[in-house]
Parts: sequence; C-alpha cells; structure tokens
Amino acid sequence: METVTGFARWYGRRVPGEDRPRYAPPDGRTAPRYSGIKTFARCPTPLDPEGVDVAVLGIPFDTATTNRPGARFGPEAVRSASIALRPYNSVQRAPVFGRLSVADFGDLQVTPGNAEKTVGQIAAQLEPIVRAGVRTLCLGGDHLVVLGELRAHAAVHGPVGLVLLDAHADVWDLYCGERYYHGSPFRRALEEGLVDPARSLLAGMRGPVYEASDLDVPGDFGFQVIRGEELVTLRPEEYAAQVRERVGEGPLFLSFDVDVLDPAFAPGTGTPEAGGLTTREALGYVRALRGLRFSGFDVVEVSPPYDGPGQPTAIAAANVAYELLTLDVLAHA
Amino acid sequence: METVTGFARWYGRRVPGEDRPRYAPPDGRTAPRYSGIKTFARCPTPLDPEGVDVAVLGIPFDTATTNRPGARFGPEAVRSASIALRPYNSVQRAPVFGRLSVADFGDLQVTPGNAEKTVGQIAAQLEPIVRAGVRTLCLGGDHLVVLGELRAHAAVHGPVGLVLLDAHADVWDLYCGERYYHGSPFRRALEEGLVDPARSLLAGMRGPVYEASDLDVPGDFGFQVIRGEELVTLRPEEYAAQVRERVGEGPLFLSFDVDVLDPAFAPGTGTPEAGGLTTREALGYVRALRGLRFSGFDVVEVSPPYDGPGQPTAIAAANVAYELLTLDVLAHA
Amino acid sequence: METVTGFARWYGRRVPGEDRPRYAPPDGRTAPRYSGIKTFARCPTPLDPEGVDVAVLGIPFDTATTNRPGARFGPEAVRSASIALRPYNSVQRAPVFGRLSVADFGDLQVTPGNAEKTVGQIAAQLEPIVRAGVRTLCLGGDHLVVLGELRAHAAVHGPVGLVLLDAHADVWDLYCGERYYHGSPFRRALEEGLVDPARSLLAGMRGPVYEASDLDVPGDFGFQVIRGEELVTLRPEEYAAQVRERVGEGPLFLSFDVDVLDPAFAPGTGTPEAGGLTTREALGYVRALRGLRFSGFDVVEVSPPYDGPGQPTAIAAANVAYELLTLDVLAHA
Amino acid sequence: METVTGFARWYGRRVPGEDRPRYAPPDGRTAPRYSGIKTFARCPTPLDPEGVDVAVLGIPFDTATTNRPGARFGPEAVRSASIALRPYNSVQRAPVFGRLSVADFGDLQVTPGNAEKTVGQIAAQLEPIVRAGVRTLCLGGDHLVVLGELRAHAAVHGPVGLVLLDAHADVWDLYCGERYYHGSPFRRALEEGLVDPARSLLAGMRGPVYEASDLDVPGDFGFQVIRGEELVTLRPEEYAAQVRERVGEGPLFLSFDVDVLDPAFAPGTGTPEAGGLTTREALGYVRALRGLRFSGFDVVEVSPPYDGPGQPTAIAAANVAYELLTLDVLAHA
Amino acid sequence: METVTGFARWYGRRVPGEDRPRYAPPDGRTAPRYSGIKTFARCPTPLDPEGVDVAVLGIPFDTATTNRPGARFGPEAVRSASIALRPYNSVQRAPVFGRLSVADFGDLQVTPGNAEKTVGQIAAQLEPIVRAGVRTLCLGGDHLVVLGELRAHAAVHGPVGLVLLDAHADVWDLYCGERYYHGSPFRRALEEGLVDPARSLLAGMRGPVYEASDLDVPGDFGFQVIRGEELVTLRPEEYAAQVRERVGEGPLFLSFDVDVLDPAFAPGTGTPEAGGLTTREALGYVRALRGLRFSGFDVVEVSPPYDGPGQPTAIAAANVAYELLTLDVLAHA
Amino acid sequence: METVTGFARWYGRRVPGEDRPRYAPPDGRTAPRYSGIKTFARCPTPLDPEGVDVAVLGIPFDTATTNRPGARFGPEAVRSASIALRPYNSVQRAPVFGRLSVADFGDLQVTPGNAEKTVGQIAAQLEPIVRAGVRTLCLGGDHLVVLGELRAHAAVHGPVGLVLLDAHADVWDLYCGERYYHGSPFRRALEEGLVDPARSLLAGMRGPVYEASDLDVPGDFGFQVIRGEELVTLRPEEYAAQVRERVGEGPLFLSFDVDVLDPAFAPGTGTPEAGGLTTREALGYVRALRGLRFSGFDVVEVSPPYDGPGQPTAIAAANVAYELLTLDVLAHA
Repeated sequence: METVTGFARWYGRRVPGEDRPRYAPPDGRTAPRYSGIKTFARCPTPLDPEGVDVAVLGIPFDTATTNRPGARFGPEAVRSASIALRPYNSVQRAPVFGRLSVADFGDLQVTPGNAEKTVGQIAAQLEPIVRAGVRTLCLGGDHLVVLGELRAHAAVHGPVGLVLLDAHADVWDLYCGERYYHGSPFRRALEEGLVDPARSLLAGMRGPVYEASDLDVPGDFGFQVIRGEELVTLRPEEYAAQVRERVGEGPLFLSFDVDVLDPAFAPGTGTPEAGGLTTREALGYVRALRGLRFSGFDVVEVSPPYDGPGQPTAIAAANVAYELLTLDVLAHA
Repeated sequence: METVTGFARWYGRRVPGEDRPRYAPPDGRTAPRYSGIKTFARCPTPLDPEGVDVAVLGIPFDTATTNRPGARFGPEAVRSASIALRPYNSVQRAPVFGRLSVADFGDLQVTPGNAEKTVGQIAAQLEPIVRAGVRTLCLGGDHLVVLGELRAHAAVHGPVGLVLLDAHADVWDLYCGERYYHGSPFRRALEEGLVDPARSLLAGMRGPVYEASDLDVPGDFGFQVIRGEELVTLRPEEYAAQVRERVGEGPLFLSFDVDVLDPAFAPGTGTPEAGGLTTREALGYVRALRGLRFSGFDVVEVSPPYDGPGQPTAIAAANVAYELLTLDVLAHA
Repeated sequence: METVTGFARWYGRRVPGEDRPRYAPPDGRTAPRYSGIKTFARCPTPLDPEGVDVAVLGIPFDTATTNRPGARFGPEAVRSASIALRPYNSVQRAPVFGRLSVADFGDLQVTPGNAEKTVGQIAAQLEPIVRAGVRTLCLGGDHLVVLGELRAHAAVHGPVGLVLLDAHADVWDLYCGERYYHGSPFRRALEEGLVDPARSLLAGMRGPVYEASDLDVPGDFGFQVIRGEELVTLRPEEYAAQVRERVGEGPLFLSFDVDVLDPAFAPGTGTPEAGGLTTREALGYVRALRGLRFSGFDVVEVSPPYDGPGQPTAIAAANVAYELLTLDVLAHA
Repeated sequence: METVTGFARWYGRRVPGEDRPRYAPPDGRTAPRYSGIKTFARCPTPLDPEGVDVAVLGIPFDTATTNRPGARFGPEAVRSASIALRPYNSVQRAPVFGRLSVADFGDLQVTPGNAEKTVGQIAAQLEPIVRAGVRTLCLGGDHLVVLGELRAHAAVHGPVGLVLLDAHADVWDLYCGERYYHGSPFRRALEEGLVDPARSLLAGMRGPVYEASDLDVPGDFGFQVIRGEELVTLRPEEYAAQVRERVGEGPLFLSFDVDVLDPAFAPGTGTPEAGGLTTREALGYVRALRGLRFSGFDVVEVSPPYDGPGQPTAIAAANVAYELLTLDVLAHA
Repeated sequence: METVTGFARWYGRRVPGEDRPRYAPPDGRTAPRYSGIKTFARCPTPLDPEGVDVAVLGIPFDTATTNRPGARFGPEAVRSASIALRPYNSVQRAPVFGRLSVADFGDLQVTPGNAEKTVGQIAAQLEPIVRAGVRTLCLGGDHLVVLGELRAHAAVHGPVGLVLLDAHADVWDLYCGERYYHGSPFRRALEEGLVDPARSLLAGMRGPVYEASDLDVPGDFGFQVIRGEELVTLRPEEYAAQVRERVGEGPLFLSFDVDVLDPAFAPGTGTPEAGGLTTREALGYVRALRGLRFSGFDVVEVSPPYDGPGQPTAIAAANVAYELLTLDVLAHA
Repeated sequence: METVTGFARWYGRRVPGEDRPRYAPPDGRTAPRYSGIKTFARCPTPLDPEGVDVAVLGIPFDTATTNRPGARFGPEAVRSASIALRPYNSVQRAPVFGRLSVADFGDLQVTPGNAEKTVGQIAAQLEPIVRAGVRTLCLGGDHLVVLGELRAHAAVHGPVGLVLLDAHADVWDLYCGERYYHGSPFRRALEEGLVDPARSLLAGMRGPVYEASDLDVPGDFGFQVIRGEELVTLRPEEYAAQVRERVGEGPLFLSFDVDVLDPAFAPGTGTPEAGGLTTREALGYVRALRGLRFSGFDVVEVSPPYDGPGQPTAIAAANVAYELLTLDVLAHA
C-alpha cells in the first residue's frame, strides 16, 4: 500500500539501480533526524543478515555492575543519540552510510539477574551472525557482555587479538564470590582461550586499584598495557603504531568502555574514574587505527540515568560507534 | 535464517494457530521490558495496515509551540515509557494486547519550521490508513498536529464529534500573526468543517486567559465546555454521561493533551498550567468513556526535556494511550 | 528614538487615552511570552511608585535557611515562570493585568550572611513604598524576610492580621543560638508588636516537630492554627469563613510559603514536609479569600536548585502570586 | 578525650539520669540537620542490639529488578532525606525519638548479581537481631529483599501476617526463568511457609497485568486484596478496620513499596505505575494502623537515579519510615 | 523619590562627574550578584542608544533548529549566568564595564513558527541601532538569527568579513524543502551579498556531514575554512594571525556558536558534535583576536533545557560574550 | 555479639596481628562499595584520635557564599562519591588505605547564618586533633572554613606555608560590609598571622575581577601567584618545583578549591569560572607535590545541587582528597 507512511517508507530498502548500500539510514535533510523509531542511526531492521555488512545489536544488561547500574538502558540511549550521525566522516574522509550496509538487529535476549546464563545467550545469538560473515557492533550493557561476544567471535575465527580502551583492565577474578561480573570478562576470556594476549593491547587504565599486584596481573597474563597516564603522552599515531605492531596478523576485536573518558565527558557510566580522556582524544586514538580490520566491536557501560540532561555520554558513545563503523569502511575499502 | 535474534524474533508476527492478535508485543516475562528497539509497547512495525486494528504513529513536531518546545521528542519518550505496559487492563478487566492487533507505523513525515505544510502532510499520510478501516492513535508533537489528524478522519468519516481533555480550548485565532499554531487547531478545524461542535465536549480548561471573552469563544462556536474547576467536581461516570449525551451518534475523535494534568504530574509539557488533574483522575475520566467508539485518538504535548528524571509525564502519557487502546477494545468487543 | 526596539518598546507605559492600567505586561499574543527580560509577568520597571497599584519586589536571601538553601534564586525563578500568566483570571472572572497597575521594582538590597541586618534593610526599603499607598507582593527568599516586610507594613498601618499558609508555624525561638532564622519570624514579629495574633490565622502546619509543646506555642501566643490534617477536610469556603471571622477589621498581610504544598508539587523548597497540599487545593484556599483587602503579600521559600526540570515549584508559586494579585483586584473593585 | 568533635559528640549515647532513649538523634536545633554522617535520622550506630528498640538496616540490592535499577542506592537516599525528621509526630501526637531507642545498624551484606544467595544472607544477618527482641525497619533495595526479612521473622515468630501497601502483589512466579526476582517474593514466602495468607491483606495493586488470571492469583493463594481503585474509596479508618479484622492475633509484618505512590510523588522507583496514591493518602493509611504491633517493617524500591532534584521519593519514603516507627511507639506505649 | 529601592537604584545611570561609563552594572561587592532583574551582567536598560557603546540584545528564536530545540530560552540563560562577570578582564588586562558603556536592550521581536519573517524583523529592529554607531552583541537563539544581524550590519557598513567559530559551516541549502533554517544562514547571506567570503574565516567545523562534497562547499563559495581537527593544532596566536591576514581592512562580524565546544563543555545546545573545543581553548582563540574591530558579535545556540544543573553551557557562553566585549574595549582603546 | 551485622562488622577495627592500619575501609571486593553508611571511603568513625594518621572531617557550612549556595551538602556528596576509591594509588604506586590509618570524625559543629562564630567553632574543634599529631583533611563547605582550619594549625605549628589551587585568591576584604565570607579567608588569615606569605604559593587564579588592582593584592601581601593561564603552561613537575622552592622548611597547608576546575569538570560549585583546569591536569599538579609534608588539607566548595546527575564534581573532589591522602602516605613513608 503505497501511501502508508512512517517507519516503512523512511527506512526502506535499497531501490534497485540506486548506488547505495542495501541498508542505510533515511536522508536527514528530508526526514528530520529526530523523527522515526530510534534504531541505530535510524538504520533498517531486517530479519536476516543477508546483505548486511555490519550488524548493530544492543545488549541491555547490567546485572554484573559493581557500582552504579543503568547500563541496561545503554542501547536505547546510544540509539537515541545516534540520530545525529550524518553519512560522511569528515575527518577520515570516508563515506560511512553511503558505502556500508548497516542494519540494527535490535537487542539480544538476556536474563536479568543471571550473569552466567546471559553470557551464554549472547554467544549463542551472535555466533550465527558472525558466521554469516557479518561484522558485529554491540552496544552494552555492562562490560561483562563482551565475554559472550568474544565467545561468538572466537568460535568462528579462533582466539582474537583484543584492542581495549578502558579505565580498567577487567581482569579481576571474584567479586563477592561471583565469577561473572563486569570486572572479570577478560580473565574469563583468557581462561576460555578466546583471546590471544600476545596480540592484545589494553590502554587507558587509571584510578585506584585494590592492591599493588593488580597492576601486574594483565602483564602476568601476557597482555600489553598502556596505562592512562602514559597513553595521554602518546600522539594518536604513536598509539596506533604500538597497536599495529602488537596485533600482527589474525582476527581482531575492539572494545571501547566509555569510562575511559573523564566523568566530565562521560558522566553516564557505572564505574567512573576521575582524570580520564577527553572525547576528542579518544576519537583521535580510535581514528588512528585506520587500516586495521576487526571482526567485532563494542561500546559498553553507558548508563543513561547518570548522564546529564544534554546526554554527553550517549553522544560520545554514538560517535565512537560511528568511528568504529568508519574503521570498518576503511578496512574493507 | 532461524537463528538470527533480536528485533526479528521478539517482535514476530502471529504464529498460525495461535490465539492472539496478528500484531502484539513480545511477552515481558521472557523478553525483559527494557530490551528491544523502542516501538510503542514494543509492538511490531509492519509495512502495511492489513491486519492492524489500531495504528500507533508518532508526529515529531513542535514548530507551533508558544512557550516551551521539545514535543518533537514526545513520540520517542512515550514509546520509551510504554515498555512497562502489560497486556491486560486490570481496572477495565479487558485484554488489550491480547485482543487488539496494534502496530507502530513509526513517525509521520513533517516539515520543521513550516506548520501549515506539516498539517497537510499529516492529513495526506493518515488518510489512507483511516480509509483502510484502521483506528489511529497519534503521539504528538504539539497540539497543532490534531488539525492534520482531523482532516484525515473527516475526509473519511465526515465531521467528527470531538472529546477533548486539555487545559486549553485551543480555539484562539492568531499568534504573532500566524494562523497555524498549537493554540488554534480547533478554530481552524471548525472553519474547515472537520468537527461538529454540537457533538463535541471540551473539558479541563483552566489557567489565565487573555481576556474575559476568551471564555465565551468555545461556546459561541457551539462547543460545550466543562471547565477544570467544574470537571473535578464530577465523578467519572457523571462526566461520561455528559459526554455520551453530547456526542450522540456519529464518528468520534478523542484528543488528550497532557497539560490537562497538573505540572506535578506532567512537568514535561509546553504550556503548563498550575492546578490541574492528577493522573489518577484523568485515567478515571478516560476509563469512564467505555462503550464509545472512536475512529481516532491522540496524546499530545509531551515535552521530554522538561520531564523529570523518572519521566512521570511520559509514563502518564503512555498509560493514557493504553487506556485509549482499551476503549477501542471495549468498543469493538 | 522611535525605532529602537526590545525592552523599551514591549514594556512601554500606557498610551494616553488607552483603557488599561499604567503598568502592565506586553500582549503575549504578539510578543511571545518567552521573550523579553524576565520581570514579573514581564511588567514594567518604573523608577517610582507613582501610578502603581501593586509593586512586586524580589528578596534574594537565604542565609536564614536551616536545611536546603537556594531561595536566593527564588525571585529569578518565579519571574521566569510568571511569563505564562495571561491577563484574565478565568476562575475568579477578574481582569488582573487589565485592571491593576503592576510594576516590578526589582530586588531589595540584602546582606548575605547577616540575617539581622537584612531584616532591617528590607523594612527600610519597603516602608516608603507602603507609605505611598502601594500594595507590595514580595518574592522570597527564605521566610525570615517576612519579618522585614511586617515591620514596614506595621510601621504604616499598625499591627497586622496575618493569614499564613505554611507547613510550619515559624514561631520557634533560637536555632544554634541565632535569633533570626527562617523558623522564627513570627515569634520575632510578635515580640516587636508587628502582628495581632487575635486577628491572625495560621493554616497548613504539618510534619514532625521537636516536642509536643511545639504544637501549643502558636496558641499560647494567641494565634489560631488550622493544622494541615484539618485544613484538607475543609472546603475552601469553610476555610475562608474562618479566616474572615478571625481577621475582622484592620490591616492584613498574607504570607504563602510554598512548602505548604506537597514535595511532589513543590520539590524546589528548603524544608519540604511530606503529605502537603496539592497546588489545586492551595489555589482554592487562596481564591476563597476574595473580598479581603490585604496591604501586603508574599510568596516565599522557592529554591530553584531543588526544583524539577519542568519547574513545577516556580510555576505553582507564580500562579499563587497571580491569585494574590487577583485578590487585590477583587478587593479594590 | 573530651574535646574531640564531630560524629562522636553529636551522636552520643544517653547520659545517665537523662530522660531519653538510649539511642536517639542529636537535637536539630543545635546540630544543624544537614550536618553529620548520614545515618537514619542521624541515629547512633552501636555495635550490638542491647538497648535498641528498633534497628534500622539498609539492604542495598537491586539485582532482582525487572525495569529500572538503582534501588541499591535506596538506603543512602532515604538516610539522606531522613535528616529532616524531628522527634515528635504531630499528627499521631506521639514522641518518636523521644521515647523509642532507634539505632542504625548500617547495611546488610549482600551479593550483587546473585539474588538467591542474597536472600539467604539477609535472613542470616537479621535473625539474631529479631531473636534479640528488636524490631527491624529495613530500607530497600528492591522488593525481593523482603523474602530474607520474612525468613528471619518467621524463624523467630512463626508465619507472619502480612500488611502490604504496593502497586503490585508480587506473587508472580518466574521471570526469564528466574525464581528469585522482585515480582515473586510473596509467592516464594508462601511456598516457604513464612506468611499466613489468612492473616494478610495486600492493598493498592494497580496497573496493567500480564493476563486476567493474574488478578485471581493472590486470592487463590488465600490473600485478601484491596485493589488500588477500591483502596482510594476507603477512608483511612475503613482501611484500618479491614486490616485489623483480617490480621487477628499473631505476629505481623508491614511492607511498604514506594511504587504504591503515583509517579508524581515517587518518580524514583523501579516499576512505576500511573495513577497511584498521593503521599498524603499513603501516610493516612499507615497512620490509621495505630495500635497494631508489628515485629518488622520495610520501605522498599526507592531508586535515587530516577528521583527528581528535590528528592520527593526519598522524602516520602523517609516519612513513611517515620510513621512506621510511630506505629511502634504507639503499639508499645 | 529618593527612597524607592530595587531595580531603580541598583541599575542607575552615571552620576555626573563620576569616572565611569554611562551604563554599567552595579557593584557586585555591595549588590550581591544574584540580586536584581537579570539583564546581561545586570547592565541598565535604557530606552534609546544614546550614550551606549555596545548594545546587548536577545533573540529568543528556535523555529529553525533541526535537532534539539530550546534556544528560544538562550538569552534568558546567558543573562542569568552573566551575573558572575566582574568588571575587569584579568587575562586581557582590560577594564570592561569600567570603560565600556553597555546596555541591555531586551529581546528583539520575533515570529515563532515563521523563520523568514523573523529574519526580516531582526534586521529591521537592529539596523537603526547599528546606524547609530552602536556595536551589537546578540544572544541567540538558533543560528539562523545571524542572517538578520548580517542584513542590518551590511545595510549600514556594506558586506562584512565574517569570523566564525562553529562546529558547522552553516552553508547548507535546503532542509525539508525550507530555505531558512539554522544550517543555511551563511549561504543565504552570500546570496544576499551581506558577507565578503574573501575576508572571512570559518573555524572549528567537525562532525559527520551528509556527503563528501559538503566539505568543499564553503571553499567553493570563497570562504577559508580551518576545520576543527586543524584548529586544535594551532596556538591562539597562530589562529589569530590567519584571521588578521584574511580579514584585511573593512567591516567585521564575529559569530560564536557554542556548539564549537565539546558537549562536555556545552551540553546545552541543539546540534552537539562530539570531540569539540574546551572552553579554555575557545576563550584563548577569541582573546587572541585583540586589536580587531568588529561592528557586531553574537553568541548563539545555547539551549537551556539540555544544559546541566550547574549550567556549564550558559556560563561558557556568558564568558565568551564577556571576551567579545573585551575585544571591543581593546579595539576602541 | 558476634552475629550482629552491618555497620559494626564491616567497619571493624584492626584485628590484632593483621598487617593493616588501625582504621581502614572494608574490602570492596567482598563488601559492595555502595553498601554501608557513607563515611569517607567507608572508613571507621572512632571516638578519639588515638591511632589515627589522618582524620577526615566535614564542615557543612555555606553561609559565606556570594553566588550559588549548597556547599553545606558538600561533605555528604564527597563521602558518597568516595566509596569508589580503592586502596592502592596506581599512578603514585602507593598503598593508601593499606598503609594509612584514616578515620572519619564526622562533621564539625557550625552555626548556620553566623560566619564569624563558625570560624571560631571550627578552630576550637580542630585544634585538639591537630595537637594530637593527627593530620586533618577537611571537606567543605565554602572556602571561609579554611580560616578556622588555619587557626587550629597555626596554633599548634605556627604560621603555615599555604599551597592553594583555586580560581580565586580569596584575599578580598569586605563583601556587603561583611568581613567573614568565602572571598576573604586568606586576607583574614594574614591579618591574624596564621599564614606565612613568603612560604606560600597560590595557583590557578582566573576569571574577571573587580578592578585591575585586585591582581596586585596577593603580591602586595607577599604571596606568590601563578595565574591560571600561566599554570596550564607548566608541566606538573615544573609547578611542583616552584612550590618546593617557595615553601622551604616549615609547616604546610594545602587547600584545594574545586572551582579551580573548569565548570565542565566541576559544575557543582558556588563560584564557577569558565576556562579552568581539567580534572586530569589538577590531579597531575597535586601528584607532583609528592614528598612535601602537609599538616592539613582541605577540599572545598563542592555544591551538590549544582552537580550533574553523574556527580562529576563530587567524584573529582573525592579523587583529589584521595591524592592528598596519598601525599601524606608518601611524605611519611
């Protein structure tokens, strides 16, 4: 029925003969950006991964947080803020939505109150998408969700090299006796053989820790760490050079925890640490990774109830997600 | 592809043989209510009105506001709050999503900055849906949008009886010389012959006006008015009896402006007036209209930037929308 | 210079021959209500009281608060919210800005950090205005400011009858050894002979007190008290009848502390007490006082930093102020 | 050391010969109410229950929430708001802190992310306090915590009669397959034999449910239910008469979920339902229970990140807690 | 009448013989900065431009916004934040209010909902002020208002050189078919011959654009552009040197859009872009322009409903406005 | 009584034989950080200073503020944010709570509304603690409180060298005729001989001042000043070298006013000035002071009602306090 409006018309699929990706947002110059159901960047929501380059998926889960909860609403907030993303990346000089077919597959099924089960659900739902050759961009959710993501990617590609930007290395062990919480995903991932520490670089760690030995743990596990106070002394290209040298050849995964930003830039997060990166710095480090090819990405720990009225955290996270998509465009150009 | 998850699986269509409406939300007991892309009550988003009883549509427009803007984000906020709506109305003892096929058609195309053109766009987009026999529930946007809605409904059904709950009668004429603004829709509707004032009842008006004659204008136009200070002395059944007597036979439209609520209950609105209804009172008046059959409904003037952190306005509006759907169930039982 | 715009043109004085008060707001139908420098209701700011019926004055002072501060910004917030007040009171059926000449004289000089001195300053500044026959409507500020107001009014008119709507009787004595704080103004006023308790009625008191005897103190001083739990059982006319009987003949002062409202209606206040009036109830009690002639009014204890994003407290306070002006219109009709 | 200041001096223990309870807050007239570490009402924090009439305990837990999290910060928020509570209840005409020895025992140990284990921890920690003859007033935390409380009380006193004020009956069974969540505590309690449904009355239930049969479940389990729409037609004394008739003789427990209030009064909660009680109504229902003797109380589901800037939810909850203490005073007078 | 207080006394005009500007704020050391009606920096509000060096004018208009509205309240917010500005610029070592006669002329008349008409109104109202030799400092409002400003200045001075600090070049053409919106003012200005692109420098542009060619448009029109990622590599003096070289001789206009700042520094804006300037950097770039003589200035796109509780955006904007006044002092020293 | 729970158990004193300080927080890995009564970092609250290395004390006072009040709630907010501080400083590579015995002594007695008296109370209460050899870390409160602190420290140690990080030098004289306000403490301290200006360095001053001579006053008094625009050109080590050279030998006091931070990083403060430090920069300057031995510290001017929902100001302040404790550890290692 031709005249039916709204969701159907704006978020339509590619018109045959048109030179644009199969799935892309409506044009913000004719469909006001604040209109339409809030999918990521107002991308379409197809039923299967056919013809999709990157699948965006929300993981609305925060059972595993140790301080401020709320990340279960992270996917909604990042989608809401993502409406302002226009198709062309002006710094990277790259078309994004003009080249990449991006679909929003909605949220993964999770089990509130049961972290271990949820990790399994995430892996089970993601694996077929990864196996279909689609790159995944997950919106957290607390950082434990990355464990499910890594299981899916490792199942398809083998152990991945991890590029992490985060205020915490997240390699702690137990929390109040629990093994699955947002401070432990990378320790669990190591134990499960999902990550290759020798091809991984964790950067941005800062803030107090429980004891001196906490600082040695990642290295003991074989990870390279660039702590926050060192990171800020590096130019983006210097950081990227270290990453490139470290990751070598093989499958890669990039995880971005918004708490790597200072609480002034990302107040809406669960475990804020004073003295972090500015958004501009973080975008610079991400952009410098151009050329690297990742099989999966995530942006996690956005907690909307702690964000300001102007949503600076969600805006920063949406822009990081956009830069991750741009990395994908540049890697597959 | 069976294993693909998320949007596709949760918001699926009716399984043949299943005794439920064609379009309905996922079950909140297995799919956490905060998960999934935020359509109204997480209802599906089909491409055509076939098999739809009530179509929910957003109208993200606030060019026509005279005090606080922000209603362009009203549809998003009401959809976000609507996730908490369970299927069965416990006061009306009526299944809602268990009986009614409800789809979210997304947002209508509007033209920011051009009120007159937008009214035309709204009418043009809605009319085929109305003509298909689908009832419409629009989420504003400022109150001018109702003019487009009324054009669509009157085009199909003829002039409608109007049941209005609002702090303002919205029959003013010009504002800074402009004819189309959120204080004038019902005057314009009368001029265009879209509304039958003899079958209409406007209730809840309160707050200061420009001059004494403002109070007489609705009556001069043939409307019945129950002012706010009188309304609160009526029991819901008394109010409903007056409505029933007034509207008689013929097509009906119900418009609910959240500013009929007190600013404590609905701070997130554009033209708040002190001393309004409580949400409980408003729900009572709406519920009492059971048995009346409306061809269209709207809930307007939700302005999220002025809502509190707990979103009381959006929650109230989502629940009013739910009661409107319930009226539809009861009228078509 | 005729073409100069802005403040000067909109807030102009009466054009000779025009049938309206000397000082009145611009017309909101041609000058958008949110435009213009934020005086009370956008009224003019003349340099002397000649031709003024009611002078609105801010008293930006909160040194004397015992819990949450911020009332120093109360005048700004009430002025900001007052822009929505249209000229005609639709319940009282009374022109307000169409009959009454209302000017905003800005804020009184105060001494932050010195409560006793400030009370003196308030009195000294107000007295000449009162003596000029102008009624005053002061916007607080914490409730101690009323002591300065009462000094000015009593100096001109003799001891006044007090009509108080407040969650607290404010007749405590010392606080941390200090005599001048927002819990003591009416005790100080009695000691200074500014108030005639036999012609006064305090209503709305609620919330815990320090000891049982606190409940007897107002009565021991000769005040009549209607506690909050009793007040809400009275219809507005019943309350007003008690007030009329109590106050008899003689000068009157009405003080409205927004904390008489429930924290849901007035979160933006310094000493909130659960379980208060709704705004609608409070407006009803104030409106019922029609016919009484007050020489002064105030609305106090609005603390903007604790108000919600939609400013329900400031909106309620601005509307109470509007009803007070209406009482003045009705008393002098 | 006599001159050491601060915490130690203000929150001191009873001076021998002084006629006041062993544990009580400092005097707000000499120690400003906003000063001091924020224990409940600034009560002392002794190390053992000797000499304590009522123990206040926080249970900072929200793993079991199904919509908005944050109740883990509920105890902090209620303590913060409780500073404004003065010692004497002016409606009940009862000394509270002047008669009752009240201590704040801090927060119970919980296990974030593990609901079942936490319930066990709560019970184990509370039981010795209950066994010592101390009444407990717990500050939630989501409503699942009541299951641990009930275990402790039933272990000492046998199955308790339950007086519940809540928007939900919380007798659902599974949520995403989980047995222990904030919608199931009273079903679990029944299964465990902790509650005597024949001596219990649940009041205030409202909002949509999953299916029609949800409305019958509490009755099928033997509970009496007064739904919200019926409750508001009862005067406090009528409600209390029904409670008294129902509960008969035997141990009693009172649980107050702040979501029984309307979202305008309690926006800061996890599962808000439109159209609830006002704070004034709720206080009235609670006060009417005077004379009943409860062995335990709780106030749950305060979620600070969703509360407004003026903290209306926390203020309401702190006042409900105060009324519960007053019930204790009156029952033991 | 000597004793009349408030607005009149504090905001008085120059006392003959006194060595200070004709119009200046009251002294914050004797008149608390939060007192008084909120004009810009509490400057007087004369009726004509005689004796005024710089006229501050609000333009409360946001019909032309494409994402978040609210800039209609920008002038009020900047005035409110400006109360903290003391007279002497400690970095530029320049008296500001001690040398410059600054008056607040209130807000310009606008037509909500009609962008094209409003632009005409702005021009008509500003032109006589500009023609009187007064420099203008306008407080937006959305960025379309600059088109009216430019018309007024070009009418008097001829085409102006434009110095723009902004996240967007604002030279787009149509938006939903509309020609006048906040993304098009400089294209319209070029078409109307109001701006000399060869004497203009646009700096700070960042964020995604619609297509690659968007980046070329400003240059095609003859503008020089320093994109954001380049700007931050320049020291203030380097930036200023480029500006000086570019603008040469002739009339100049400086426009500052707060969205040039990062959302952490300016969350309260309509079209935030991640990764912008810090306030300190922006102040540095503005200060470096010392010596240049502008005929007009503006600070636009402050949207208070999206600002944080501490108003960082309004504070930043007020300080930028102060630096603009300082440039005026330095240019006319 | 072994089984009693909560406050008592978690915040227990040292177990004999255990290798940790006498007073230290519970372990956040077993006692969730958001649990427990909110003392600073959840440290114990002993009754006397025996065995305490550093005493944390709140000073809930804001009578002396000249712009935005609220600092009376500063101690509560910093305590609340301090729960996230883990024991080991990862940048300074220093145990903090693992080495230092830290106790929270609650809040000092103050007299709201009486600044001069309060300063005396502060001094009287602090002096015995200082005399007992305990270092003090006070949480303001507005900056006037430092005058009381300095009196106590100078009484014991003689005139102290002052290391100040602040946007204002706070050496003004009178404010509205009052001598004791938050802009005058260091002038008063000089007059009283509490500070040795020749051993003092004030850094970070920025923002407009009243007149040019304001800039000379600190120097005239013998202080060294590094203004904000100069400070940011110094690397932390350069700043620290200047401090070391300046302070020489003798008692030292460090005062940190959060307004030295930019309003984006510290919106929750009373006298914000645009263009300040980032939190990261400020932490860097503080950390660089390692090796210096201070007898007292404070962090002042945190005003929670103006902080954002994510509490960036309180988080920054808590981390600064943590760095101050770390300086103490390093100086006494």
